Amino acid sequence: MTCQPIITLTTDFGSSSPYVATMKGVILSIIPDVRLVDITHSILPQQVLEGAQVLADVTPLFPTNALHVAVVDPGVGSDREIVYVEFSWGRYLCPDNGLLSRLAEQAEPIMMVTVTAKQFFRERVAPTFHGRDVMAPVAAHLSMGLDPRELGPLHRELKQVNWPGAVKVANRITGEIVAVDSFGNLVTNITREMLADVPTDEKVSIRCDDHETCNIFTTYADQPPMTLVAVIGSNDQLELAIVNDNAKIMLGVGVGTPVEVVW
Amino acid sequence: MTCQPIITLTTDFGSSSPYVATMKGVILSIIPDVRLVDITHSILPQQVLEGAQVLADVTPLFPTNALHVAVVDPGVGSDREIVYVEFSWGRYLCPDNGLLSRLAEQAEPIMMVTVTAKQFFRERVAPTFHGRDVMAPVAAHLSMGLDPRELGPLHRELKQVNWPGAVKVANRITGEIVAVDSFGNLVTNITREMLADVPTDEKVSIRCDDHETCNIFTTYADQPPMTLVAVIGSNDQLELAIVNDNAKIMLGVGVGTPVEVVW
Amino acid sequence: MTCQPIITLTTDFGSSSPYVATMKGVILSIIPDVRLVDITHSILPQQVLEGAQVLADVTPLFPTNALHVAVVDPGVGSDREIVYVEFSWGRYLCPDNGLLSRLAEQAEPIMMVTVTAKQFFRERVAPTFHGRDVMAPVAAHLSMGLDPRELGPLHRELKQVNWPGAVKVANRITGEIVAVDSFGNLVTNITREMLADVPTDEKVSIRCDDHETCNIFTTYADQPPMTLVAVIGSNDQLELAIVNDNAKIMLGVGVGTPVEVVW
Repeated sequence: MTCQPIITLTTDFGSSSPYVATMKGVILSIIPDVRLVDITHSILPQQVLEGAQVLADVTPLFPTNALHVAVVDPGVGSDREIVYVEFSWGRYLCPDNGLLSRLAEQAEPIMMVTVTAKQFFRERVAPTFHGRDVMAPVAAHLSMGLDPRELGPLHRELKQVNWPGAVKVANRITGEIVAVDSFGNLVTNITREMLADVPTDEKVSIRCDDHETCNIFTTYADQPPMTLVAVIGSNDQLELAIVNDNAKIMLGVGVGTPVEVVW
Repeated sequence: MTCQPIITLTTDFGSSSPYVATMKGVILSIIPDVRLVDITHSILPQQVLEGAQVLADVTPLFPTNALHVAVVDPGVGSDREIVYVEFSWGRYLCPDNGLLSRLAEQAEPIMMVTVTAKQFFRERVAPTFHGRDVMAPVAAHLSMGLDPRELGPLHRELKQVNWPGAVKVANRITGEIVAVDSFGNLVTNITREMLADVPTDEKVSIRCDDHETCNIFTTYADQPPMTLVAVIGSNDQLELAIVNDNAKIMLGVGVGTPVEVVW
Repeated sequence: MTCQPIITLTTDFGSSSPYVATMKGVILSIIPDVRLVDITHSILPQQVLEGAQVLADVTPLFPTNALHVAVVDPGVGSDREIVYVEFSWGRYLCPDNGLLSRLAEQAEPIMMVTVTAKQFFRERVAPTFHGRDVMAPVAAHLSMGLDPRELGPLHRELKQVNWPGAVKVANRITGEIVAVDSFGNLVTNITREMLADVPTDEKVSIRCDDHETCNIFTTYADQPPMTLVAVIGSNDQLELAIVNDNAKIMLGVGVGTPVEVVW
């Protein structure tokens, strides 16, 4: 099947911002038949960690030739670099500020290039909007088949950011809420892997703030409405949910609240 | 004209949720040249009735070969079934929980299949996210030309949900507000059809809470700014609006508030 | 490269509104292989001025054969006209209510047509939703190659709206905040051009409400976090920003607040 190249966009511009469309306009002016897919534009402003998590959760599901452009860029206009990075599961173009931290935990990049070749930028580059003036046109040229090595020298090392990790000691795992989804479900940084030898019955207690539930279930529907339940969510992370209701609001907790699993 | 297959998406994930993009990634990995169109992702969480209304209002306007995927799925992981349903005006894939109630009032389905054929699902199906692991890949296969009868056995009967209907007795129609649009206009469940023999002049009174207006107009612009007006809206349902302002805020009413037409 | 025609959509329907998808359904039913790109659907309800600014900021970046459909339409159903307007950088279809004011400042239109040819409308035109019933089908026909002159008679003159302009007298420019972006940055109506002979060092003072900063910088990253800075933004307009924070919230100001530059 002949198919159009795909560019995805992940930004902190806000879902109502016309800044996103300016990037699309620049891209389509260079390569009118590219497919554009929005990942999200609701990363909290300049929250690189949140962007890194979304890129890790979502982009590996796309076709491997997709080009993922991410603009969460608190350092725009400073000397932070823009990088092109290729993994086995996809290609990325973004500021080198930690946005690829979560993905880089999973495998070594196949290729990394520091983007410096100004001939692929817009003629005038506004120091406050590299998304429009650098990343959009470079992404368009890459999707037209430009060899990434023409973008600049090989890149040495990706910036890493500190990641709040859960800790397992004896019969206790201590983690925290790292995300709240649109249903109010509380996503923790406690992974399916860490829970592998934890019993899934009444002997395990999951605590969050003053609230406690026992047992780790496989789905929300296993319990009556309004019950607090712990499940391993669709991204293989422990989640707390209120069946048919909003756990964030009902429990009054949020990102950063500690969560403990004891058995 | 050769044309790409179309898949539309209607969910309650929230317009900022990356869950939508995970479904798109799964679909595009299987069929990279499908057209993806968002209907809305702002159905209130688990509000099947609202989803059913949006599907009925919007999807019949699409090309008849479009496949409409709807994920408003409070029963995910329970024994509720997933169905493929074909009407003369379009094809649908969704949980069998009432989402097709409003459409099924308009005509009998041409074909209904219970989706059970695991070979078209993702290899690992998370019990909390059938949108990504079941409906997305099945939609992709259908768009590639898969015969729907390969998805499972014929489906017997669609689940229905109770719909708040307006009631007409002598010279009085009693209904309620069933939706509020982004302009604050109040959409009622009183239809153009019910109003067919109602006078459209000063003799008709429309009441909502403590507020009253006379006459049913054909457009907002017929009255001065800040006036409360009743019009038959673009979906053939009676609406209350404040000219150039927000009726929901000005009147302090919302979904469920009774509306009465007397003449 | 063969390429699909492009239609962009700019409305005040709200980003969660299914009204947008009804327009897409109508368009795709007529021309299934058109490319649809959302500019924004978050223009404040009926704010023609805001729509005019967004169209001017974003649409010139698109390919010149793109058709830009804009529906911010407080006069829908009245005798306001719908116009097709062609500039050297793109084609437009919208109510003639000032939406093209900002673009028309930049150049004379190449062609203007008053849209009256009912054979290209939907069969039944709801007086409250010309976006769906007039503009969507007309846009689809134009994208299929319809000669715009078949849409109606030549249009005489575009409606203009008053634009709040900044004023320069001696060593002082007086303007105001005209937009706030999703980062809380305050965009003023003071242009790069007006600032051409203003010193860019400590001798220039920028005042907004009770707040003051000196110097006009080229990027946010030039100053420490939490500092109030003035920069010339990516649209060549003076902006006030708090480095790594939200100026709108921190300063308690918004659209309409006066801004003064003195040197």
